[in-house]
Amino acid sequence: MNYSIIIYIVGWILEISAALMVLPVITAILYGESAGVSFVITMAVSLLLGFIIIRRKPENKVFYTREGFVTVAVSWLTLSIVGSVPFVISGSIPNPVNALFETVSGFTTTGASILSDVEALPHCVLIWRSFTHWIGGMGVLVFILCLLPLTGGYQMNLMKAESPGPSVSRLVPKVRSTAIILYKIYMVLTVLQIIALLLCGMPLFDTLCTAFGTAGTGGFGVKNSSIGGYNTAIQIVTTVFMILFGVNFNVYYLIKIRKIKPAFLVEEIRYYFGVILLSIILIASNCRSLFPSMARSFQQAAFQVGSIVTTTGFSTTDFDQWPGFSKTILVLLMFMGACAGSTGGGIKVSRLVILVKTVKKEIQILLHPNAVKKVKMDNKVIAHEVVRATNIFMVVYIFLFAASVLVVSINNFDMTTNFTAVAATFNNIGPGLSLVGPTCNFDLFSPLSKIVLIFDMLAGRLEIFPMLILLVPSTWKKF
Amino acid sequence: MNYSIIIYIVGWILEISAALMVLPVITAILYGESAGVSFVITMAVSLLLGFIIIRRKPENKVFYTREGFVTVAVSWLTLSIVGSVPFVISGSIPNPVNALFETVSGFTTTGASILSDVEALPHCVLIWRSFTHWIGGMGVLVFILCLLPLTGGYQMNLMKAESPGPSVSRLVPKVRSTAIILYKIYMVLTVLQIIALLLCGMPLFDTLCTAFGTAGTGGFGVKNSSIGGYNTAIQIVTTVFMILFGVNFNVYYLIKIRKIKPAFLVEEIRYYFGVILLSIILIASNCRSLFPSMARSFQQAAFQVGSIVTTTGFSTTDFDQWPGFSKTILVLLMFMGACAGSTGGGIKVSRLVILVKTVKKEIQILLHPNAVKKVKMDNKVIAHEVVRATNIFMVVYIFLFAASVLVVSINNFDMTTNFTAVAATFNNIGPGLSLVGPTCNFDLFSPLSKIVLIFDMLAGRLEIFPMLILLVPSTWKKF
Repeated sequence: MNYSIIIYIVGWILEISAALMVLPVITAILYGESAGVSFVITMAVSLLLGFIIIRRKPENKVFYTREGFVTVAVSWLTLSIVGSVPFVISGSIPNPVNALFETVSGFTTTGASILSDVEALPHCVLIWRSFTHWIGGMGVLVFILCLLPLTGGYQMNLMKAESPGPSVSRLVPKVRSTAIILYKIYMVLTVLQIIALLLCGMPLFDTLCTAFGTAGTGGFGVKNSSIGGYNTAIQIVTTVFMILFGVNFNVYYLIKIRKIKPAFLVEEIRYYFGVILLSIILIASNCRSLFPSMARSFQQAAFQVGSIVTTTGFSTTDFDQWPGFSKTILVLLMFMGACAGSTGGGIKVSRLVILVKTVKKEIQILLHPNAVKKVKMDNKVIAHEVVRATNIFMVVYIFLFAASVLVVSINNFDMTTNFTAVAATFNNIGPGLSLVGPTCNFDLFSPLSKIVLIFDMLAGRLEIFPMLILLVPSTWKKF
Repeated sequence: MNYSIIIYIVGWILEISAALMVLPVITAILYGESAGVSFVITMAVSLLLGFIIIRRKPENKVFYTREGFVTVAVSWLTLSIVGSVPFVISGSIPNPVNALFETVSGFTTTGASILSDVEALPHCVLIWRSFTHWIGGMGVLVFILCLLPLTGGYQMNLMKAESPGPSVSRLVPKVRSTAIILYKIYMVLTVLQIIALLLCGMPLFDTLCTAFGTAGTGGFGVKNSSIGGYNTAIQIVTTVFMILFGVNFNVYYLIKIRKIKPAFLVEEIRYYFGVILLSIILIASNCRSLFPSMARSFQQAAFQVGSIVTTTGFSTTDFDQWPGFSKTILVLLMFMGACAGSTGGGIKVSRLVILVKTVKKEIQILLHPNAVKKVKMDNKVIAHEVVRATNIFMVVYIFLFAASVLVVSINNFDMTTNFTAVAATFNNIGPGLSLVGPTCNFDLFSPLSKIVLIFDMLAGRLEIFPMLILLVPSTWKKF
């Protein structure tokens, strides 16, 4: 294992963590909040520590998949620990485990909170909470790739480890250029949402926080009622942008380079929108009696479907009160998640499409043993490696899920609470059902459960393997 | 598709169905019950119908995997429909959907019932109910293989489609001899249990029914309290035999041919007993306060663990009242199930072992890309085909599971009910939790849900593909 390069990159993570805290510090100055001091202290320490580390350049730049995975996992842990310090110092979340839970929930764009009253927090803490979503949405190592002129072939190993989806493709030959394009798309969409929300009459501060939470598909809000207290126009704008941030960003690149038709023919996108539309229709019909009009029922169904499928986790209504059929659809959407290459979590649409196609192929082979069949997507044969990786991903996903539910069940809550708490954190959604429903929070769990859920959030965001590898002894052995 | 051979075998199924009903008819005569007439009528019609069909020998004996799967699925449906007729005629279960549910639950060795008061049923109906477990446990086509001197290479295609587990191996070169050996082991174990139960003071009639239910890992009882009303000795004997019937029968063959040491070194068996022991210890500790002594807590934990892991479904206590941690262990055991090549259901221990080993291998490849790794079990390399089939099985399993929960959720019961109802039928267990807990029954579901659960029970017993293939249009096309 090449430790020197890992430590070097962690040093840069510390520098960047400090730099990112400029936003809450400015906010604290504008609102005259003393809590800003906690950010200044954290910044200073982080900056100094990072500076000491990066002064020593790595002598060896060899960087394999293993190093990529470990770097990503350790970077995210570092980022989360540094990010949680201001919560503790400022007294907003005095308990360190709770503060870490909240910060990991932020960076992993989960949005599960241990707070019962977010409106009591100072503005600088609120904007930091939402900003962590925005940072985590696109990925922090992708960000480093934009800034650092790292050479050698190892950038791809970092990008592979951090980017969601069954396979990672470069939009352009250079990894760094790809990263810059992705960040540009991300920024443009975020700015568009901010403008749209302002036009609908949302206050500027709320607009920034909501846009950060939507862009990263996170879900932290600045109101106890999430988005429920805002007007319908704001809710509709948020619905649209949640769904847009769940789209594979490659599609936006295709649109940008004027390949409009191919953009709309991407299979994953068609399934993504198809499932969303079908779910909205089923839920709106199933919940019709709960709302004054069919239009309202549709609007509310659309918001909740958009929020869950993209794994954002905003809410406008307590969907835990919805009928069983609607709730089951939402739970299934939690697992599906958004498109690969988006900021959303979950298993990802493209993985499920690959799995369905593989099953279809196997059935055809069973029926007609001599027929030669290949699994295709977007008219291209899917590499055997991708199919295998997808299968392995599913298996690990299920094992980790089951183990987490088992540990969480020690709290002796009902099974729906345990199951959806794990589903909501592992898929980076936020709220679940029953005791972790949209009107509740995650503070009721024991520290052990919280640590398991923290692991699940990170494993969900980094697609399991980088986190899993930390636990494997042979990762740390010389080879 | 070679329809003539499928119809020919279905004809034999009708003949065998009729022959099997001799047992309830004798019981009716002994107890002087008029309900026996319903069996005589069904026998006569089935016998005649079967006779007409088998008079016409198939002109073409070509028999591929496709035909094997379709034959097995259609045979099981035929068997279930014929078997349900006496319930309807005798008035024990007048509703045909309910009668079919109960019969499918019997043959698939599920043991989920729609009856609230089994003690009200006549003896001939009760013994038929339990006897269906015994027939279904070993498989009815395996039985046909013992009787019919079918030649040609197609017996293996039948056996493959009906036998549980990731791969089917012949104990001896001839499929028919293998089938006979398996049935002999099955009979010897059943007789041993009958003797043991009689020695513990159980009445003969109850002994027969309980032994049938245990041998097939079914779970239908003759008392409303399942096994809870019998003495502790009977409960312990039942625990031991439940666990024994969940063992891969190949192990008994190894013991029979005096290969004692290899029998105990079979990996699947060690994991099977390991998981059982660990689960008993965890549950007994977790439930300690519910029982007067530690010994009692262990005994009750052992019974429920044995019952669930082997997918039998007998109960001695209402485990729905147990703490969340214990209930979660039981739910996870529901999915694991028993060994391949046993009469138990579920995913099977060996499949999970294969999956865990595959994941381990993939992680090693990730860490050391140049290392050549093979997945081994019992010191033999597992064929790539088996690993692939296991992956595909898991994927189809999950999709079918999710779809079933969605349909069942239309009833608007709580999520634990929906989830465990599907888990308990798909894994051929019987009772679930909440509204389908050990003290409840499945009558509360709508006809649509019952049909879905009937499909799930058959899909679970036949390991999905034979049933799934019935729904694929291209199965029925000429090729």
